[in-house]
Amino acid sequence: MSSYQALEKKFRRMNAIGEASGVLGWDMSTVMPAGGAEARMEQLAALSGVRHEILTSREMEDLFAGALEKKGDLGSWQLANLREMQRIWRHATTLESDFVEAQTKACKKCEMIWRSARPDNDFASILPALKEVLNLTRQEAKIKAEVFECDTYDALLDHFEPGGKSIRIDAIFDDLATFLPEFTQAVQEKQASEPQAIMPDGPFSITDQEKLGREMIKAVGFDFNHGRLDVSLHPFCGGVPDDIRITTRYDENDFMTSMMGVLHETGHAMYERNLPKDWRLQPVGSARGMTMHESQSLIIEMQASRSEEFVSYIASKAQTAFKGKSSAWASDNMQRIYNKVKPDFIRVDADEVTYPAHVILRYRLEKELINGSMELDTLPEAWSDGLEKLLGIRPPNDTMGCLQDIHWYDGAWGYFPTYTLGAMAAAQLFASAKSEVPAIPEALGRGDFSPLMGWLRKNVHTWGSFLSTDELLTRVTGHPLDTQVFKAHLKARYLES
Amino acid sequence: MSSYQALEKKFRRMNAIGEASGVLGWDMSTVMPAGGAEARMEQLAALSGVRHEILTSREMEDLFAGALEKKGDLGSWQLANLREMQRIWRHATTLESDFVEAQTKACKKCEMIWRSARPDNDFASILPALKEVLNLTRQEAKIKAEVFECDTYDALLDHFEPGGKSIRIDAIFDDLATFLPEFTQAVQEKQASEPQAIMPDGPFSITDQEKLGREMIKAVGFDFNHGRLDVSLHPFCGGVPDDIRITTRYDENDFMTSMMGVLHETGHAMYERNLPKDWRLQPVGSARGMTMHESQSLIIEMQASRSEEFVSYIASKAQTAFKGKSSAWASDNMQRIYNKVKPDFIRVDADEVTYPAHVILRYRLEKELINGSMELDTLPEAWSDGLEKLLGIRPPNDTMGCLQDIHWYDGAWGYFPTYTLGAMAAAQLFASAKSEVPAIPEALGRGDFSPLMGWLRKNVHTWGSFLSTDELLTRVTGHPLDTQVFKAHLKARYLES
Repeated sequence: MSSYQALEKKFRRMNAIGEASGVLGWDMSTVMPAGGAEARMEQLAALSGVRHEILTSREMEDLFAGALEKKGDLGSWQLANLREMQRIWRHATTLESDFVEAQTKACKKCEMIWRSARPDNDFASILPALKEVLNLTRQEAKIKAEVFECDTYDALLDHFEPGGKSIRIDAIFDDLATFLPEFTQAVQEKQASEPQAIMPDGPFSITDQEKLGREMIKAVGFDFNHGRLDVSLHPFCGGVPDDIRITTRYDENDFMTSMMGVLHETGHAMYERNLPKDWRLQPVGSARGMTMHESQSLIIEMQASRSEEFVSYIASKAQTAFKGKSSAWASDNMQRIYNKVKPDFIRVDADEVTYPAHVILRYRLEKELINGSMELDTLPEAWSDGLEKLLGIRPPNDTMGCLQDIHWYDGAWGYFPTYTLGAMAAAQLFASAKSEVPAIPEALGRGDFSPLMGWLRKNVHTWGSFLSTDELLTRVTGHPLDTQVFKAHLKARYLES
Repeated sequence: MSSYQALEKKFRRMNAIGEASGVLGWDMSTVMPAGGAEARMEQLAALSGVRHEILTSREMEDLFAGALEKKGDLGSWQLANLREMQRIWRHATTLESDFVEAQTKACKKCEMIWRSARPDNDFASILPALKEVLNLTRQEAKIKAEVFECDTYDALLDHFEPGGKSIRIDAIFDDLATFLPEFTQAVQEKQASEPQAIMPDGPFSITDQEKLGREMIKAVGFDFNHGRLDVSLHPFCGGVPDDIRITTRYDENDFMTSMMGVLHETGHAMYERNLPKDWRLQPVGSARGMTMHESQSLIIEMQASRSEEFVSYIASKAQTAFKGKSSAWASDNMQRIYNKVKPDFIRVDADEVTYPAHVILRYRLEKELINGSMELDTLPEAWSDGLEKLLGIRPPNDTMGCLQDIHWYDGAWGYFPTYTLGAMAAAQLFASAKSEVPAIPEALGRGDFSPLMGWLRKNVHTWGSFLSTDELLTRVTGHPLDTQVFKAHLKARYLES
């Protein structure tokens, strides 16, 4: 066996163990009784411990050296696989295992406190734990930045968005931050002058909602022979590429949130499902990163499912499903509901136009917090000032301000920008897809995602991690991530329609 | 860290990984979509591979040597834990990993063929694959017998019933085989002279069956905060001690099979649940073996739940649950249904009196097959002859004969006797429990298992694997496994009531 082959074997096993953790994670969020939590934590810790030991074992260094020496024997996918293996290995080996353990403990502790600090609006109570998390995050960023020879923020970003650079995100977000306030104002004025959206009357039975959800999942192209739809408190797409577990939650008074949520998660699911089969359990066979992953959920939810064509289809479909009678079910009213723009305090409830402001705020704050030019004591104030500047509203408390997201409290620093980068990539990919396959909008009007999905499969999904995000976008759309297409999409949808 | 402590740490991790496999196994049998099977196999293989590597790593030998050298420092539970660790280690290290791999493959292949050979009544089609399995089983038995210095059959039995000896089983089974044919005849004659059992009329809605099942599970004492009830094709009790997954299947025309099945699995569940908490994830904290495990399911299903007291309780309970009106719901009729004795071809459908014949037949055949005094070509004939001799009936085909059980085909040789040894242990424990806690029968008459469960918890469950099966039985009942109590139980229930 060559060194490269030995590496493949090791990563195959590590990733199979990672898949096992994925299934256990789904179980924990959907069906596990509360009393199983402690044992589950130990199971998951054992699995991640074993993976870490395989990844950081001494022979890996020799295997990498051996594989690099015989690079000439490798094909292009093998080379890309080797590159991705090295990236993962580098992340794992730069930190001492004592440090990782301290970090895991600090994050778990902080997250626990956050679960009550958020509803209690008590930032002071979490400040010491969050300081400890940030302190370790800064150390991690510094250590990795030295080894990777990059900016501290980028060292963390790389974990979520391989190869991502804050210098590019700065430019993108500055552009959006200049564009959005005025644009949002204009959209709100336009919408104020139009008929107001009326909500269809519930209740909407959960049975009917689930039935409609399943139909939508199938319409997008998902095969239930390779996955499930279940209920969880926080909807997610989990499991493994050949057995994908989509979750949602239902509210009898509102079917629209769950339906769009299901479409969103199905976008993630289709990406996982269509990853290159020949590279299952190998790094190059995995999704490219969080930007591409979010682009795949948002191209389904935001681009396709909120298009005029699809909304007109789903309006009539949902009216039938729920036996609706009022004029609230008319296509143009549904369009108004789905495209309503209104600045709000909560990121996860934000509309397409105001969402980037939430992300830009968090990105700018976490950058300053990581590089040390800001301390946590001033976070609540800085958060409120920042939101006011970007959206013109000031959160009434920290529950609706800097305590709302779990990310920083459980240690996910450098993750936030991928939400908006993903939204932009979705707009860019959708524009290219429509220009190459003009039948896409009309098909969506019939609830048929197959022309879009065929294009995505061919141009995005089956590429796995072969290319970087920008390389992939350039290959498919002609240019790297670009604010122009996103702004054009927003203008077309919110001002020109 | 002492060598002993290092061993505990290693076993803790191995067993946490084993628990992860347990949850994945539950998932596979209950909720996994068919398309996830291949990926799941790879996940499970990776987990068992990792466990095997930890168990057979070179340092283990030194750790055992070190721990044995300092045996004097250990308490009695630690010593028992060390003994169990050695037993597990010995099983894992006697076979070369190439051999284990060949065996796993041969068993998987044979089991696959069996899935169609059984319904097709085609023993010839499976003969070559089964020969391969038996050949490897004989080799395993021979290798282990040499290392363990025991009989070949006992080397396999030890895996399911630690310390079990065929010389004792021979004596027990010979005694039962002498007693049972005449006894069965006598019971059948008695039952023929009595009013015939009438089946209550269905359909019994699955919702009502599930509700009743959950009530029964709670009545036995199971806490749903630490487990679930779900549906699977083959009912089982899986999961892990702190998160136990009971399964059943429902038939709208028959609620009694599912109800008794649920009680049976809850017996297993309570054993797991009450294992010594201080020894979680350690070998000594695990269930003693298959005999004790089966005794715990059968003490609930066969001893307690078919007692006159409980049947009279459940008859009225079920009548209410299903809004039954006919006289079929009367207590004495329910008793007749539950205690009906009738020789049949299928083991899993057999009643309490004829069940041992099925087990004795398989035990005698597998002993001869393992020691080489019989070859597989003559199995169908030998099976039919054996059943006729023990039960007076001859299977019409191999589907209902030697093809009915999965055990040999998937490599579980040496497992069968534990079913009947477990039934005997259940009778023996129940007799002692009643004599020590006379309130047990009356409580069962109110659907209250707590006096029985308290006794089992104290005398059986919390002992884990501290003692051997016979040591435990002797400690609790005054003597090792003994046919007299079992025969007395059968006589009392089937001839004297």
